[in-house]
Amino acid sequence: MKSSVPQLAAFGGRPLFPQPLHVGQPVITDHELLLSDLDRVLRSGQLTNHGPQVRAFEEAVCGVAGTRHCIALCNATTALQVAARALQLTGEVIMPSFTFIATAHAMEWIGLTPVFADVDPLTHTLDPDSVAACVTPRTSAILPVHLWGHVCDPADLTQIATRHGLRLLFDASHAFGCRRAGTPAGGLGDAEVFSFHATKFVHSVEGGAIVTNSDALAERCRRLRGFGITGLQEVSDIGTNGKMHELSAATGLRSIAAMPELLRRNHENRAVYAEWISAVPGLKLLPRPSAVDTNAQYVVAVVDEDQFGLSRDQLVAILRSEGVFVRSYFTPGCHRAVPYADAPPDRHMRVPLPVTEQLLRSVMQFPTGRSVAPADIERIGALLQSICASSGEIRRRLATGFGRIVWHPADPARPRDNALREAG
Amino acid sequence: MKSSVPQLAAFGGRPLFPQPLHVGQPVITDHELLLSDLDRVLRSGQLTNHGPQVRAFEEAVCGVAGTRHCIALCNATTALQVAARALQLTGEVIMPSFTFIATAHAMEWIGLTPVFADVDPLTHTLDPDSVAACVTPRTSAILPVHLWGHVCDPADLTQIATRHGLRLLFDASHAFGCRRAGTPAGGLGDAEVFSFHATKFVHSVEGGAIVTNSDALAERCRRLRGFGITGLQEVSDIGTNGKMHELSAATGLRSIAAMPELLRRNHENRAVYAEWISAVPGLKLLPRPSAVDTNAQYVVAVVDEDQFGLSRDQLVAILRSEGVFVRSYFTPGCHRAVPYADAPPDRHMRVPLPVTEQLLRSVMQFPTGRSVAPADIERIGALLQSICASSGEIRRRLATGFGRIVWHPADPARPRDNALREAG
Repeated sequence: MKSSVPQLAAFGGRPLFPQPLHVGQPVITDHELLLSDLDRVLRSGQLTNHGPQVRAFEEAVCGVAGTRHCIALCNATTALQVAARALQLTGEVIMPSFTFIATAHAMEWIGLTPVFADVDPLTHTLDPDSVAACVTPRTSAILPVHLWGHVCDPADLTQIATRHGLRLLFDASHAFGCRRAGTPAGGLGDAEVFSFHATKFVHSVEGGAIVTNSDALAERCRRLRGFGITGLQEVSDIGTNGKMHELSAATGLRSIAAMPELLRRNHENRAVYAEWISAVPGLKLLPRPSAVDTNAQYVVAVVDEDQFGLSRDQLVAILRSEGVFVRSYFTPGCHRAVPYADAPPDRHMRVPLPVTEQLLRSVMQFPTGRSVAPADIERIGALLQSICASSGEIRRRLATGFGRIVWHPADPARPRDNALREAG
Repeated sequence: MKSSVPQLAAFGGRPLFPQPLHVGQPVITDHELLLSDLDRVLRSGQLTNHGPQVRAFEEAVCGVAGTRHCIALCNATTALQVAARALQLTGEVIMPSFTFIATAHAMEWIGLTPVFADVDPLTHTLDPDSVAACVTPRTSAILPVHLWGHVCDPADLTQIATRHGLRLLFDASHAFGCRRAGTPAGGLGDAEVFSFHATKFVHSVEGGAIVTNSDALAERCRRLRGFGITGLQEVSDIGTNGKMHELSAATGLRSIAAMPELLRRNHENRAVYAEWISAVPGLKLLPRPSAVDTNAQYVVAVVDEDQFGLSRDQLVAILRSEGVFVRSYFTPGCHRAVPYADAPPDRHMRVPLPVTEQLLRSVMQFPTGRSVAPADIERIGALLQSICASSGEIRRRLATGFGRIVWHPADPARPRDNALREAG
């Protein structure tokens, strides 16, 4: 283990992980079985257009989500667009700024206006009071996000939606296989949207899905996914191409089949992180909200700069140098991204976002998933302890010569990383 | 061969093709090689996010299209959206109504207004005079379609675009591998969009691509494809998820490699159709425009009802009963589809569309591609001759009892087919 500051890769030592560890490294389970599934698909003559693999995948998703309907799509961004169009949203949609940019962009792409509300400091999901303060006559929907798989408490949000006649569409991109009070994510509000992107613990390479218990909404989503076409020659709705194809669906089916193993590994990893992180002053593993069972896909920690001795951005930079490719999602926040930051001040912002601002400075995510072994995490844990113990010396070095920090050779952030430019 | 009317499947005879022939049956070439490519992708750890397969596919597309840039996308509809956004289109976009609905829907999906111009009766591509008559101060672009691979004559369209300061974006969904005066489709206007959907002769299961010679436009399209993200934490543009993934790209690469064989078969099939159809009164194979070399992906015929003795819709119904799943693209025309037909009269319609109307009644497409053998086409040819010879008797039967027509058991049009409901 690294016992002195010069041993740190950031200052010229050898990276702890020459082969870096990623947040959301894509995993293929049951490689040979999947390959024989793909073989069968290629021989079947039906490669897309709602074939048997997609239908089976939709059924499997319904099984996990406990919903009547699943509409599989090529990705979750398209799924959000199709759901919003199927719900006939107009004007403004209230959502967190503390989310992946796609939540906002999916609405903006189809001409809707994201309005950003603040989130709860413990669950990181929408704060109902902040949402209520954002409602205007132009609001048509609330789009809460089950961030980190923290399934939102729907009670207050539903009340606001009902009071103002708003639609309630959940971005459940992080929440496949998560539960609240024993009920799986999927059946809340008018509809929920899952992501099955390769970085998710269950994935179809690229993919997304709308789940709902409404027969009429499901029917409309299916139409909109396929150009609004309802017969060989009949177009009865505006639509797009949102189709998931058979190779993706086959991959997704194998992934769902491996869920028990993937969940076991995620929870095991999280437990190892929990043990090590609890021993590091100023670093806290974000606890799961009461009543929520997550898929442990994200290992989220909060840095207290004063206690730890380094800022979140400094810690991220040092860990990345070691090949621990931690992330600082979702810096700088949707409200600071183009085009929202460039818009007139009150177009997307109606309320202050103090909690969001705080989280954007202090939250980070650790690598997990099947490609990260508990032994790796123990090494990360020891590294964290040694970084924290040397934080004073590190801080002094950074203050005087941060520009000389040594990047990990495999770091994709190397050419341009705000965290580094702004840190120190 | 069927020599009497009762032998026709439509009137109770056995279908000529119990295993039906389709327009655009997906083809996998070099199955074993593709499977080993997919195997390698699955083992590589990079399944999406602009991986090596996608980059190689983009390079191969550039090679065929003769362009500097290719941006591969999840499908052509998304490609049209991304191209339109990258070109910063606003207001109205002039396009043919005689095209697949996705051309119009892609614009409408992102808040642009399709305005429908008429087409040339011989090439079936935009009539520049009709386009010129549609220009208003709200027009931002012309979106011509290289229908059936008939690469548009760009001269007049470019002149109109230049005169009015309009962008010129070509929907080249049908035109991969086609040429005009020896120059491949791809480099016209500001950009062109290819489709690589499974029904196309070269395909990536689902897929599309933007090709352009503009460095700046290509850069912007790449950004928009990936959420507008330009760094690990930097969002500098509105964007969507338009990513093609590695399994699709690997399939597309094998398909491009097989182009010579696929083209040979398409042209061989077309020649057999040409020979047989030339002997049928009232049926004409649509000739390729002078100076254009097509991929022969579509075998398009025009029915002269008076001469043939049956309407196009009647002929389509009878052939489909036999398992010859001919199509009547693009009935009923975009301008008669929802939401365009329901809009205020002058929102999408500024000029009459007499040629479009005529084509919508008279044009049909025959099955071709690697799954259709020349011997199949000879049987279709003989069937066409016998149908034409008996057209009088068939017409009388249809007039008295069209409702009793017998469907092919595998016909997906069975539950609801306007052609049949309206024919007779």
